Amino acid sequence: MIHIYTGDGKGKTTAALGLCFRALGWNLKICIYQFLKSKESETGEVNALKKIKKTIKTIKINRFDQEHPIFCSKHTSTNYSVGKLKESLIKSISDVRKVIKSKKYQIIVLDEIINTVSEGFIKENLVLDLIKNTPVDIELILTGRGATKKMIQSADYVTEMKEIKHPIKKKIYARKGIEF
Amino acid sequence: MIHIYTGDGKGKTTAALGLCFRALGWNLKICIYQFLKSKESETGEVNALKKIKKTIKTIKINRFDQEHPIFCSKHTSTNYSVGKLKESLIKSISDVRKVIKSKKYQIIVLDEIINTVSEGFIKENLVLDLIKNTPVDIELILTGRGATKKMIQSADYVTEMKEIKHPIKKKIYARKGIEF
Repeated sequence: MIHIYTGDGKGKTTAALGLCFRALGWNLKICIYQFLKSKESETGEVNALKKIKKTIKTIKINRFDQEHPIFCSKHTSTNYSVGKLKESLIKSISDVRKVIKSKKYQIIVLDEIINTVSEGFIKENLVLDLIKNTPVDIELILTGRGATKKMIQSADYVTEMKEIKHPIKKKIYARKGIEF
Repeated sequence: MIHIYTGDGKGKTTAALGLCFRALGWNLKICIYQFLKSKESETGEVNALKKIKKTIKTIKINRFDQEHPIFCSKHTSTNYSVGKLKESLIKSISDVRKVIKSKKYQIIVLDEIINTVSEGFIKENLVLDLIKNTPVDIELILTGRGATKKMIQSADYVTEMKEIKHPIKKKIYARKGIEF
């Protein structure tokens, strides 16, 4: 089944991680892909997995060393270009397609994949195609701002996270253990 | 700081659990209270904690053996009454107050506590009082439908989970690893 967490509010990635945490308890096999995130950036979820990997082997996080142009300090260097980012995204979606087909995992999270479409880095059809080719006994969880009409139509669960209040407006920025 | 996850959509408890999962990675001390839930009911999150408790000791889940009248099969028995539920809720909130004051935990989740107010089991003031007495260096996360105006006013982060689509409408009910 297809799950979408979209909207401008806090809790999209967090809810996807929570679903994984819950699924761990039932020994489901889980694979998380984080788009638009660097392999190098340290986050709570990656650290938590390192800690538990001796006792729990049913969960995996993958990143592709992609950075959003806004957050990327590399974009001033010669090694970074939006063109390269787009290429990397297309390649990684092709990897995901194979993993879905392999039926190795029961839960597959595609974190921030919706942004890759809503910000114009990849075509909507690539994501719709992943959705269409997901067997009904696999849970595919897509997160990100700006889910399209067609994505919503093809999903089973859709929640919009609506921001009512966020301390960033009081200039309190991302905090360790809370936002990452 | 105070976080509220409210609204009718899927993802409130799940986001709170995801926040805990992330915080585990940074060795924060976490305490989860689940209101209106029985100690006996088996859930993914409780199972997951059992699995990791040898490697990670910084997280704890507490329940009070409370059941919502709607889900409670006991409510036909002589041992169950809404009056007793209310008493139990008042007692558990008093426990939470002590735990907040002890400063033993950096993250405290009060799962479904908002429902205890919106469904009329306890008075709003009891929850507002917990919020008011939470030091700024503790993250207090409240979940549940029907956050009141005053709760929202006193919170730092508020996200409304809006249901856009849910398969319950196609008569697909709670599934293991997904809804619990």
